[in-house]
Amino acid sequence: MSVQKPSLPKGTRDFGPLQMARRNFILDTIKDTFRLFGFQQLETPAMENLSTLTGKYGDEGDQLLFKILNSGDFLKDVAKEDLDMGAGKVLPKVSEKGLRYDLTVPFARYVVMNRNDISFPFKRFQIQPVWRADRPQKGRYREFYQCDADVVGTDSLLCEVEIIGMIKRVFGQLGINDYSIKVNNRKILTGISEVIGEAGRESELCVAIDKLDKIGWEKVQEELAQRHFNSQAITQLAPIINLKPGNREKIEFLKTFLTKSEIGLKGIAELEEVFSLLQNYGENEAHVDFDVVLARGLTYYTGAIFEVKVHGVSIGSVSGGGRYDNLTGVFGLPGVPGVGFSFGVDRIYDVMEELGLFPSDSLDGTQVLLCHFDQKGFEYGLSLLGELRKAGISAELYPDTGKVKKQLDYANKKQIAFAMILGDDEINQKKVSLKDLKSGSQETLELAEAIAKIK
Amino acid sequence: MSVQKPSLPKGTRDFGPLQMARRNFILDTIKDTFRLFGFQQLETPAMENLSTLTGKYGDEGDQLLFKILNSGDFLKDVAKEDLDMGAGKVLPKVSEKGLRYDLTVPFARYVVMNRNDISFPFKRFQIQPVWRADRPQKGRYREFYQCDADVVGTDSLLCEVEIIGMIKRVFGQLGINDYSIKVNNRKILTGISEVIGEAGRESELCVAIDKLDKIGWEKVQEELAQRHFNSQAITQLAPIINLKPGNREKIEFLKTFLTKSEIGLKGIAELEEVFSLLQNYGENEAHVDFDVVLARGLTYYTGAIFEVKVHGVSIGSVSGGGRYDNLTGVFGLPGVPGVGFSFGVDRIYDVMEELGLFPSDSLDGTQVLLCHFDQKGFEYGLSLLGELRKAGISAELYPDTGKVKKQLDYANKKQIAFAMILGDDEINQKKVSLKDLKSGSQETLELAEAIAKIK
Repeated sequence: MSVQKPSLPKGTRDFGPLQMARRNFILDTIKDTFRLFGFQQLETPAMENLSTLTGKYGDEGDQLLFKILNSGDFLKDVAKEDLDMGAGKVLPKVSEKGLRYDLTVPFARYVVMNRNDISFPFKRFQIQPVWRADRPQKGRYREFYQCDADVVGTDSLLCEVEIIGMIKRVFGQLGINDYSIKVNNRKILTGISEVIGEAGRESELCVAIDKLDKIGWEKVQEELAQRHFNSQAITQLAPIINLKPGNREKIEFLKTFLTKSEIGLKGIAELEEVFSLLQNYGENEAHVDFDVVLARGLTYYTGAIFEVKVHGVSIGSVSGGGRYDNLTGVFGLPGVPGVGFSFGVDRIYDVMEELGLFPSDSLDGTQVLLCHFDQKGFEYGLSLLGELRKAGISAELYPDTGKVKKQLDYANKKQIAFAMILGDDEINQKKVSLKDLKSGSQETLELAEAIAKIK
Repeated sequence: MSVQKPSLPKGTRDFGPLQMARRNFILDTIKDTFRLFGFQQLETPAMENLSTLTGKYGDEGDQLLFKILNSGDFLKDVAKEDLDMGAGKVLPKVSEKGLRYDLTVPFARYVVMNRNDISFPFKRFQIQPVWRADRPQKGRYREFYQCDADVVGTDSLLCEVEIIGMIKRVFGQLGINDYSIKVNNRKILTGISEVIGEAGRESELCVAIDKLDKIGWEKVQEELAQRHFNSQAITQLAPIINLKPGNREKIEFLKTFLTKSEIGLKGIAELEEVFSLLQNYGENEAHVDFDVVLARGLTYYTGAIFEVKVHGVSIGSVSGGGRYDNLTGVFGLPGVPGVGFSFGVDRIYDVMEELGLFPSDSLDGTQVLLCHFDQKGFEYGLSLLGELRKAGISAELYPDTGKVKKQLDYANKKQIAFAMILGDDEINQKKVSLKDLKSGSQETLELAEAIAKIK
């Protein structure tokens, strides 16, 4: 067999030990939070039938699906003439499966297939990779994890409150303190477009307004004009764009602004109810920021809209979600409303790295390495190794005899906090010399003392 | 959009909440053990270049790889004449990536690509799904998890001892008590084939002997004869096949039997050393069973061979592994020896189900549901909800007002252990009525008392 220089497919990554420890720290925090709030885990297969996936993400999404070649003679249904018809026509003959593109469509499929066994309201979380044939660039990968929680089968605004509660717990536990949970409500956006005389055009309105942070109000006005919003409508928007901070103040302003829009006022009432329930739940409004122009992928959301932004970092939105009316209609089961939220694990990782929030020592690695000078020391170490592990200490015995320096290098590279040096003195005294590899200090101890110290 | 009845690709599965809780129980036990023994986690992408995957699993394996269709116009390099050449020739023009088939080849690729950054010996574990286009049948899926630990870069027999230690810990923690860790050594098999005058034919020998459990010694002899093993050789095997139990006794017999085979005696010496180190480590030989005919995929292993079998269940081997000389040679990096072991998570799951080892109540679900009769009760519940969660109790408030019976049905379906009933009396007294949903008993308590009780 010829020797190859191996490589990774573009847009994909390995996660080595350090990255995994950090990722696990984030994911475990999120999982613990989901469980504390009563969410249950679901996993779906990487492969779905293309009939399940196509048509759910728009034309562009269909293009970005990774398709699996049929097994065996994948050409058996392909005639030469088919080649003239192009890849789109040949595709159904050579592929019937694709890779998961997000977690929402598989979740909807699961709910429909198991609707008789699920007890609604169904609180599920799902943490799995998804695949998109996007052009890879910095921070955009072809394989990445999504981390979703959804409650379906209830209209209760308690769900919205719990999403805010979960976000606060996760970011608090991760040590991210300077962030905003932006909240809005689709009905408010609908109301705004009604009031400015452009009823039904909130999608277009939001596509333009969504760029406010990036391009500024001047350019947004230009874009709205290009989209044939009339100039009076655009002028009417100005106070919305320039709202002063303060959730109460914004709400009061919008009660007046939206006075002629029933749906707009409904949106405000929902938002007020969420704030009221939040207080009742024992959470204050710290971090929670009513953002009247927060839009996200509007076509989907019907009520609350959420987005989390960490301040002082180069990364934009790190998480988001919202309420929808109809998760499963596309699979023939209408009337399953819900609220979903997705933690952007990769972005949270980048934020924590940028802010230096990961501890400098390893997060879940070996706590102590047993070092020895000779076979006798190796055997003495072996007899201690089981004791350490029984005490719950993650321990290793260096497997080969050799220079202690090499063994300590191994410990340092693996960010192991302690070394036990096992020479003749230690063996004779039935003790251990415990070296703190950070401070360099060393002391000779009984094993039990050393265990207490390591813990 | 037309309404579809959704389905799953054949050979794939969803894992719902109960299955996930059980799988997580198994996986967390294995992960904790890996970490306690100093293994570090690695994750590699689902997609690998086909150049990385093909030729590593034999012709049959190549057939069973799931291939990914190139993005965009996948037909752009395909001419009509190509169709005459068949799928095998067209494949490289339409696909350059495939799905991970096991965790060993991606691990080897990782080691080669990161050899300058890895500190050897490198102890890595990896728990990820793999995909094989096998014909689906009972217990065989096209997507399944592998759960591997390997130590590479050392010849130390400590690794073998640690594998035995990890197996014992995992199965002990899972509550599986009646099982054998079968151990053997490839060198012993080599020695046996030398001694019976069929040197170098241990692969064939083992393919036949591997069937001993299934077809019996008579049929194995027939197969060996068909493979042109001479009859004297087959006769000489009889005492090996009929060895009496007892690790020491078997070793003593083989020392005599293999007296003329240097490599055979080396294998015995290695095995004795493993047993000796095991004792030194503080573990006895309970569950450890020297099985002279244990072979597994011989082409790969060069030293120790392991297999775990649970007794009294219909499932065969549930885990296995062994020592190899050369993980990475195929990628141009010779001389990376190691030992690997793989826990068969799906099979362990099936064994635990068959033996009734999973607790009847949910493993990681909500601990208490707050039930209410009206808006007032809902609000009272909301004020308690945050307190419960702050105390580390996984709690839910039923989100909609409605009959308490419906709420209790929800709790029962979700296997929630406790309900807090929040009626007017409880609200007025600022207490809670805690109902044990298993026993049906109910008492009125202060919140703090209820928290203590739930914990």
